Amino acid sequence: MIILHHLNNSRSQRILWMLEELELPYEIKRYERDSKTMLAPPSLRQVHPLGKSPIISDGEVTMAESGAIIEYLGQKYGDGRLIPETGSADYRQYIYWMHYAEGSLMPPLLLRLVFEAIKSKPLPFFIKPVARKIADETTRQFIAPQIKTHFDYVEKFLGEHEWMAGHKLTGADIQMSFPLEASVARGVADSYPNITAYVKRFQERPAYQRALQAGGDYDYA
Amino acid sequence: MIILHHLNNSRSQRILWMLEELELPYEIKRYERDSKTMLAPPSLRQVHPLGKSPIISDGEVTMAESGAIIEYLGQKYGDGRLIPETGSADYRQYIYWMHYAEGSLMPPLLLRLVFEAIKSKPLPFFIKPVARKIADETTRQFIAPQIKTHFDYVEKFLGEHEWMAGHKLTGADIQMSFPLEASVARGVADSYPNITAYVKRFQERPAYQRALQAGGDYDYA
Repeated sequence: MIILHHLNNSRSQRILWMLEELELPYEIKRYERDSKTMLAPPSLRQVHPLGKSPIISDGEVTMAESGAIIEYLGQKYGDGRLIPETGSADYRQYIYWMHYAEGSLMPPLLLRLVFEAIKSKPLPFFIKPVARKIADETTRQFIAPQIKTHFDYVEKFLGEHEWMAGHKLTGADIQMSFPLEASVARGVADSYPNITAYVKRFQERPAYQRALQAGGDYDYA
Repeated sequence: MIILHHLNNSRSQRILWMLEELELPYEIKRYERDSKTMLAPPSLRQVHPLGKSPIISDGEVTMAESGAIIEYLGQKYGDGRLIPETGSADYRQYIYWMHYAEGSLMPPLLLRLVFEAIKSKPLPFFIKPVARKIADETTRQFIAPQIKTHFDYVEKFLGEHEWMAGHKLTGADIQMSFPLEASVARGVADSYPNITAYVKRFQERPAYQRALQAGGDYDYA
């Protein structure tokens, strides 16, 4: 039986969705973020030294890292679903988005989050306005233009394609879902109708809905 | 003929190394960073809308994103080299590190770079000390512990393994090389003898040396 070590409000929601798409039997082991620090609990480190979610156990195999888990599950249990045929044009798109999601799209979104966090941190009153100014300027000059470039790019692609890699859902859609639905939920994608429609499209899938039920609270969705 | 759109001091050094490992014929098209902003030139956007390097053209195929290019080249031209057999334990390690390098290891290193940059930015004299304090505190409390967790983890792995995925070099080593050699070059890895020895081990490979010659200036190496 596959065990998903699941942290609430995390990338492991993707794996839950994938397990539901493949209609695999699985068990959820739950970990709750610390309500103050929002960090994963130390107990996750007993499963994997990095203490990050998602992690799956599948018999002797322990796998971490969203992209690697999606690849593993797709190859082992996909039976032709969720991964296009190796060597095809769809496969090239698949592998591209699989790496693009965390390698290129997430970094500017992460930077934005970190600088937003600095603005909301409790700081001495005489430092606070300066901190806010530094955060705002860095976001404006350096981070926001990068996010715009990426969103313009994905928006254009989704104006011409229903799914990320070919005519049906693949692991690449699952891998891309996290940054895109987080952005839609936070209003970052308000001026991107194709991205918004795409997120709605995959969120309406029965397997996605079952994953949401199974996972419990999920703020990004 | 494969064309590598190569930006100096960038992730495209990895692809150059991979091309040399596979002894493939290729052509380099060079792009130079703006000496002031250190950004890639706008001409790269004509090759790919994101204007980032590496990008390769291979006949009709244009591929971006380091991880995806490594997968593409390995699958199309590797002929059993650089990718372990699908479904094997080595393959699971391979796919894990392929995603870990940019998905987990790079983000805290990127954050460190950004906060270092804030400290060295020209700022009004009354803001500068506050900016430095904010950058130092964020690094100390939030970023440095993450980097330590990751480096401890990779250090332990490299104490027990010669290569990332099995008994010989694979694409996973090439994908992991960028964050690790940058860290060694900047002294971040000074207290990590296994990481330092590993970087030296792959940098001594003839194919790596040829890539260095072909690529020109490379500050991270």
